Amino acid sequence: MKEQIQKRLDSLTKPQGSLGKLEDIALKMGLIQGRIPKLPRKKAVYVFAGDHGVVEEDVSASPKEVTPQMVLNFLNGGAAINVFSRHTNSDVLVVDAGVNFYFKDNPGLIKKKVGYGTKNFTKERAMSIIEAKKSIEYGREIARHSIVNGVELAAIGDMGIGNTTTATAIACAFGIPLKDIIDIGTVITNEQLNNKKRAVEKAIELHKPFKDSIDVLSKVGSYCFGEMAGFLLECAENKIPVVLDGFPTTAAAMIAYKINPKIKNFIFAGHKSLVKGHSVILKSMELDPILDLNMRLGEGTGAVLSFSLIEAAIKMINEMETFESANVSKKE
Amino acid sequence: MKEQIQKRLDSLTKPQGSLGKLEDIALKMGLIQGRIPKLPRKKAVYVFAGDHGVVEEDVSASPKEVTPQMVLNFLNGGAAINVFSRHTNSDVLVVDAGVNFYFKDNPGLIKKKVGYGTKNFTKERAMSIIEAKKSIEYGREIARHSIVNGVELAAIGDMGIGNTTTATAIACAFGIPLKDIIDIGTVITNEQLNNKKRAVEKAIELHKPFKDSIDVLSKVGSYCFGEMAGFLLECAENKIPVVLDGFPTTAAAMIAYKINPKIKNFIFAGHKSLVKGHSVILKSMELDPILDLNMRLGEGTGAVLSFSLIEAAIKMINEMETFESANVSKKE
Repeated sequence: MKEQIQKRLDSLTKPQGSLGKLEDIALKMGLIQGRIPKLPRKKAVYVFAGDHGVVEEDVSASPKEVTPQMVLNFLNGGAAINVFSRHTNSDVLVVDAGVNFYFKDNPGLIKKKVGYGTKNFTKERAMSIIEAKKSIEYGREIARHSIVNGVELAAIGDMGIGNTTTATAIACAFGIPLKDIIDIGTVITNEQLNNKKRAVEKAIELHKPFKDSIDVLSKVGSYCFGEMAGFLLECAENKIPVVLDGFPTTAAAMIAYKINPKIKNFIFAGHKSLVKGHSVILKSMELDPILDLNMRLGEGTGAVLSFSLIEAAIKMINEMETFESANVSKKE
Repeated sequence: MKEQIQKRLDSLTKPQGSLGKLEDIALKMGLIQGRIPKLPRKKAVYVFAGDHGVVEEDVSASPKEVTPQMVLNFLNGGAAINVFSRHTNSDVLVVDAGVNFYFKDNPGLIKKKVGYGTKNFTKERAMSIIEAKKSIEYGREIARHSIVNGVELAAIGDMGIGNTTTATAIACAFGIPLKDIIDIGTVITNEQLNNKKRAVEKAIELHKPFKDSIDVLSKVGSYCFGEMAGFLLECAENKIPVVLDGFPTTAAAMIAYKINPKIKNFIFAGHKSLVKGHSVILKSMELDPILDLNMRLGEGTGAVLSFSLIEAAIKMINEMETFESANVSKKE
């Protein structure tokens, strides 16, 4: 299959390899679909929302009330993720994985709440082992529902004040040195950055050693990270490509990757975030980001913007003429 | 105006600056349009084609017959630029600036031939001063026609076997050291790369000193480069933004920039090419590329792909809710 797709790419009227990452994307998408890739008939981004007990440690720029406020903003169509999803003709589904708020029913809201926010992981486990397993299973259920509904290209985003602190703790629990990844998510004070660093150090010291993904998730994760990991595992098992967004979604991918490293063959890195740790953990899974726009938002924006390039790559391999069909001379 | 646009950007429901380059794009587009920017009603890419006498020096991977063959491929809709232009809903216009071939009339072809290919600039001037001026004027005419036809966002691409050798010579004539920019365009042999280097060195030695843009264009340029420079000058004077593609289009921008440095305020760098010299000459004009996809094709592909992100940026500033309208708390 790989040879067949590569041969097609090399027959098109352009110097071999001259379309760079677009050729890589077309090849990867072809390997996922098991054919010369076709355009996805339906695209959607799932924004997983949850509250993080660690915000008690004063690690964030915004008050925690912003988590439910932004969920409502997503449901009303007024956030950046809504604008970019309309732009790329994709649906936005918001998942309440664990926001500390009761939401009314809404067609754009998937209610999969494991709890009303996690515990402060600097003092105790963020959640029980049972909750950790439940969050993974909920994520898998969302993916199955998505697949049944015909989504052929998905993206994930994350919303939750404190999410980059959780993402940092997860990466450290998997053995990545804190100094390589500690950074601000949104702009915070130096004191808050110190708080963030201390919170992660304290959590790692308290909870080490870490046994496996479920252990990491239960000790320093949160509900939305578990659901994203389950979503990725289920999509990969069903050969549905998923595009990651920034640091939090990529930390969730690490949880899934440590359960099944093969998921990386079904995952695209939509963009490279400004958050320092993002490229470090992308590299640990050998993922190469598509866009690099100095963004640091996390709600899925970088992922859905990359949809346009993934589709361009698929159109390229299907619509371009070959040297033979176009009567263009190859190299002498 | 700048303050007004920045204020609007900072009022949107996202941490300030978190959309990175998209915010820069929205601001620049707003300053060009003199308002909160609106979407372009019509987009088009102009692919300037010409033959380069310097190919006699064996500097290229493909035979020179490929220039007219690719022009016909563009007109038939089978090249990468056609696929990506359809993808971003933009028109493709091919300009015969100086191909060594007689083309029949075609609605997609703009006939502005200055000559049937330039002279070999390692031995003599590529063109006369009169031809240099004529190519700039032809480019301006194309731009005026484009503006009258309602194009509000344009891109330029270049097609012509040998074009990166010409681009390298132009950059060197403007004082950029050869060692910083010499590179392959498409994959060539080491011998051809040496030929390319020697050809540029010989041309610079033969023609120095260089007086101004017209002198550079006449001595080491070519017809398509002159027309692109004229196109950029005329668009800037009429406040129409133009997106550059790779190394050749950016070298043409240098010719225009040395005539009127203000054009950089009306120019976007669509992408960063793999060709080493591209980022060097972009930096010399303080232009920051939007995409970075390891591409090296040059016919306008990177430029039109970036249209999607420019439009996303404009939609962002127009469609996102503000903290106030969405009832989202700002930082404490």
